[in-house]
Amino acid sequence: MDDGAGRDEVLVERAAQVGALLLESGSTVATAESCTGGLVGHVLTEIAGSSRYYLGGSVSYSDRLKEQLLGVPPELIVAQGAVSEAVARAMAEGARRLFGADVAVSVTGIAGPGGGTATKPVGLTWVAVADGQGTVMRSHVWPGDRSANKRHSALAVLDLLVERLTATR
Amino acid sequence: MDDGAGRDEVLVERAAQVGALLLESGSTVATAESCTGGLVGHVLTEIAGSSRYYLGGSVSYSDRLKEQLLGVPPELIVAQGAVSEAVARAMAEGARRLFGADVAVSVTGIAGPGGGTATKPVGLTWVAVADGQGTVMRSHVWPGDRSANKRHSALAVLDLLVERLTATR
Repeated sequence: MDDGAGRDEVLVERAAQVGALLLESGSTVATAESCTGGLVGHVLTEIAGSSRYYLGGSVSYSDRLKEQLLGVPPELIVAQGAVSEAVARAMAEGARRLFGADVAVSVTGIAGPGGGTATKPVGLTWVAVADGQGTVMRSHVWPGDRSANKRHSALAVLDLLVERLTATR
Repeated sequence: MDDGAGRDEVLVERAAQVGALLLESGSTVATAESCTGGLVGHVLTEIAGSSRYYLGGSVSYSDRLKEQLLGVPPELIVAQGAVSEAVARAMAEGARRLFGADVAVSVTGIAGPGGGTATKPVGLTWVAVADGQGTVMRSHVWPGDRSANKRHSALAVLDLLVERLTATR
């Protein structure tokens, strides 16, 4: 995953797998990205024909856009922090509801090098997938630099999406 | 620009230049992407400290999200098509207004391999930059495959943004 150009090939392969599963089930997907900055949408749209299942999404780098575009309650961000299980859930559920998708994914994390704290280190990332069955969340702490952490996070949310799409088919 | 791994380095270099200019002017930027799928936001956020000027944005792959997230009038999309000068302008101006940014960029195009017509071929892309002085639009027809066309489009909008930031400083 950290061998330069090879990194993105893994992401695009996973995006192709996601696409095949979505076409099989006739489902649509939306994205709610923070720390990945648009990378998840970028790799999903590397696949020809992705407009058949990818509706689009938000890049809410600022907290205000998390509230405005995804309906994340400001008090939740104050209480739990933007990088938290509760905010990852609210982002995915907000994207699913507001963007009208069958499934929505979210990513919120601290890509670094700044922004880490004692309890929330650089590399901490929450990913979530919301579908008709509910919402699943997962956390990771990546050891890499900013760019590697973004790619790890994007792969993690695509992995979780593949898991959910496989489990619910 | 088409030499594999080297392609993204050019994009990240341009994103660093954008970041330096935005920091110099104390301005914020938002993105309104369609065919690039999030690539512009991704490269902007490869730069450490980009949260100081990048607010986020939308990936409006579907026409409905162009209307919902950016306020693009549905009748404009019907009359001009989603890939048009008027829609590129409306996306950039909508992002600037709705996301509260000093400057906003938009990209709408036909990445391929499908979606082309006699008057709007695969590769046609409109990019726009809206700032306090007005909005500038530019069109291109890229000769590459889907992935190359996305990267050309992302670079074109970053180039136009650098031009505007340099002209207005």
